[in-house]
Amino acid sequence: MVAPPKPQQPPSALLPELLAALPRGRVLTDPDVVERYRHDEAEWAEHGRPLAVVRPESTAEVASVVRACAAHHVPVVTRGAGTGLSGGANAVDGCVVLSTERMRAIVEIDPGERLAVVQPGVVNDDLRTTAAARGLWYPPDPASAPWSTIGGNVATNAGGLCCVKYGVTRDYVLALEVVTAAGEVVRVGRRTAKGVAGYDLVGLLVGSEGTLGVITEVTVRLRPLRAAPTRTVVGFFDSLAACGRAVAGVTARGLEPSAFELIDRHCLAAVNEWKHAGLPQNAAALLLARTDLPEPAAEVEATAIREEFEGADATEALMSTDAVEAEALFDARRLAYPALEQRGDAILTEDVCLPRGRLAAMLQRVAEIGAHHDVLVANIAHAGDGNLHPLLITPHGDDAARRRAQAAFAEIVDSAIDLGGTVTGEHGVGLLKRDGMRRELGPAVLALHRAVKQALDPAGILNPGKVVG
Amino acid sequence: MVAPPKPQQPPSALLPELLAALPRGRVLTDPDVVERYRHDEAEWAEHGRPLAVVRPESTAEVASVVRACAAHHVPVVTRGAGTGLSGGANAVDGCVVLSTERMRAIVEIDPGERLAVVQPGVVNDDLRTTAAARGLWYPPDPASAPWSTIGGNVATNAGGLCCVKYGVTRDYVLALEVVTAAGEVVRVGRRTAKGVAGYDLVGLLVGSEGTLGVITEVTVRLRPLRAAPTRTVVGFFDSLAACGRAVAGVTARGLEPSAFELIDRHCLAAVNEWKHAGLPQNAAALLLARTDLPEPAAEVEATAIREEFEGADATEALMSTDAVEAEALFDARRLAYPALEQRGDAILTEDVCLPRGRLAAMLQRVAEIGAHHDVLVANIAHAGDGNLHPLLITPHGDDAARRRAQAAFAEIVDSAIDLGGTVTGEHGVGLLKRDGMRRELGPAVLALHRAVKQALDPAGILNPGKVVG
Repeated sequence: MVAPPKPQQPPSALLPELLAALPRGRVLTDPDVVERYRHDEAEWAEHGRPLAVVRPESTAEVASVVRACAAHHVPVVTRGAGTGLSGGANAVDGCVVLSTERMRAIVEIDPGERLAVVQPGVVNDDLRTTAAARGLWYPPDPASAPWSTIGGNVATNAGGLCCVKYGVTRDYVLALEVVTAAGEVVRVGRRTAKGVAGYDLVGLLVGSEGTLGVITEVTVRLRPLRAAPTRTVVGFFDSLAACGRAVAGVTARGLEPSAFELIDRHCLAAVNEWKHAGLPQNAAALLLARTDLPEPAAEVEATAIREEFEGADATEALMSTDAVEAEALFDARRLAYPALEQRGDAILTEDVCLPRGRLAAMLQRVAEIGAHHDVLVANIAHAGDGNLHPLLITPHGDDAARRRAQAAFAEIVDSAIDLGGTVTGEHGVGLLKRDGMRRELGPAVLALHRAVKQALDPAGILNPGKVVG
Repeated sequence: MVAPPKPQQPPSALLPELLAALPRGRVLTDPDVVERYRHDEAEWAEHGRPLAVVRPESTAEVASVVRACAAHHVPVVTRGAGTGLSGGANAVDGCVVLSTERMRAIVEIDPGERLAVVQPGVVNDDLRTTAAARGLWYPPDPASAPWSTIGGNVATNAGGLCCVKYGVTRDYVLALEVVTAAGEVVRVGRRTAKGVAGYDLVGLLVGSEGTLGVITEVTVRLRPLRAAPTRTVVGFFDSLAACGRAVAGVTARGLEPSAFELIDRHCLAAVNEWKHAGLPQNAAALLLARTDLPEPAAEVEATAIREEFEGADATEALMSTDAVEAEALFDARRLAYPALEQRGDAILTEDVCLPRGRLAAMLQRVAEIGAHHDVLVANIAHAGDGNLHPLLITPHGDDAARRRAQAAFAEIVDSAIDLGGTVTGEHGVGLLKRDGMRRELGPAVLALHRAVKQALDPAGILNPGKVVG
């Protein structure tokens, strides 16, 4: 799917206009520099050659860029840190890549209103740290949090471990400042806890992957800072079916873990190999559940979770008794992806979300699809959400294996639809999930999407080809 | 603002078509019956004379109605129980009122996926009761919950007491079946806990007050059933400023009451008068906060709330020790509106939402506006959300007082905007808040609204004149 090298675009009248409109240093055209902005982490997806990269430092500069691009019918591809996994930030030929990396001011933290106002280039973890210093917490925690930006998180409606209890990025966005496709600066949403004045344009923009507007400021809701969770329960299972029963049992009992993760035996093996962790290698999978209730409710909930694990025939189930131990048990989850990466293979990351009750069936199908296509598939899952990340692993440079992995990827997407799930739980549509999304939504709902896109970006200059394509 | 009687519409070719397309009894044209469907509880807002009322019993019937209306360019005004307070369900001349009252099946409760699927005419409390029998909880709890329907709640993005901790209706809607303006049946959203495949059309439809589609089925997320809360804290304050400090103190301390309400001295007096409740009449206002944490955390949180009340100079602050006492303390809140209604006056209900820190300032302005216009204003507020319901009370049939109340209503709306708030926190735009919404959003954001409306309802047949009007 890698796009063949395309001829350099003819010189455009746009470039001199951008150079004149923006302060020195904002517009980059050096081919080596531009090369670094051609794609996000979905390097497997097609990506074109941008005309230029711009790094505006203010809303007014973003508006100038969009107005100039609109006037010249040049596409604008907005990106944050480029940590996306679906190709949503991949360049198209002749576009301007608009990077928000220099818009990284935390404008305001307001403890009285429990909100923060940030520029889009603020890194997720930086917002988290700054909020924590004021006794507040920004829950959405994608694995990319040390690098990814709030703007990118908003554009993709990022999830993470916390969302099983605390919701996704959309649940935290109160207001947005946005540059429209016409280059106009508008503010949508509000600073109040509630509000129903007009359509939910904030929610519409969240997750729209830069196709409906360019986000230049984000107002997020914050929660009171939690005490560090003290209780993690880990369960080892010798079958995926038993894992599925354990997840169903925890849900049916009305328990609400603040994180509820699964990693399979391939991840266990990689972590053992890398860190000599001594995890049981014969387990088919491991479930990790964390509770963040205050004690003694935490112990009650953790004990109930352990009982559900045991009732589902866990070969072993352990419970931490303090925050340090709770974190240590989560290491296996945190280390799984880097441990697999460590081996030097190429990893194609899936992101399907199933009804919780179908998780075990889906894991079974994934194993069959991997076997059928002769591709090693490791699995990480936000089990409590039914959000599964099969990792399709192939040796670097092995084109035949890569093609087999791509075939397996497509079959996994189809299976998720068959089982009543969605083709993307949290990574976004971008390029990799466009076909799957079309199958999932069907023509009538796609027509509604295109009508909305047409309404807000009639010339189609905002991230063309992504999502509705 | 009551619309003058308009001449009866000329006979339309639509009626015979509706009668032929629908089973017997679905189409009502008897003037006495039709009269009951002309407006919601915003009787002060204009309302026209419908051509007919239809009460479809299935999605297919709704689609037939919309297709026929679209073909004849006849407006469709959808309504649930008609408990709205903004005129969102008020008829326009010559329209078809589509009542969902007969679509009241609870299609499915799925404890494993923690979701329910219901037809739009299901009454909020009926869903709540049915879910509770399965150990599940549907949080959104507007005051109209004993009568209002889930379809109407979704159309207005209804709030309630719980939302201070648990969010509003939009936070619970996973998927919708909708009849589009063209009469096509589509399904948007998903049954999974997470999903980012495409734009958030579910969120866009929630709160769109029947202007973008007719909702024919709703899939909602449920939570595990809570134990009955045992701790309510009540504080009496002799100034609105002290109330404001108490709300700010509770928020700043990171406390999260599951309900946090205010009623003022006019409400106290009305409750005392009606129920001989013996509440302190000299208090300017009373704050009620409830915690639903498990014990002993509940006692810790309730004690902290009481401390904040005392620190803000409450003249008295009490804490319940069991569920019965906790409920009894909330009676003053529950009885406030009926106690005022009991006096037989006309009540015009406001619904502004302020940043929490501006609540005391807003209450002060409301008092000044009431005094200036010689209108009695009682106040109920979801204090923890900054959502304020000034109740403008005038003697029935006193047209001069009614006009003064309408002037006060408009000034309260303007003050809310001035103080950084929104013109409607949870009741919706309908007709009463259209002008205020325009001032709040400004022309550029309104243009985006109109573009979305045009995209999804190009002929403008769905609830014309409401919201974007």
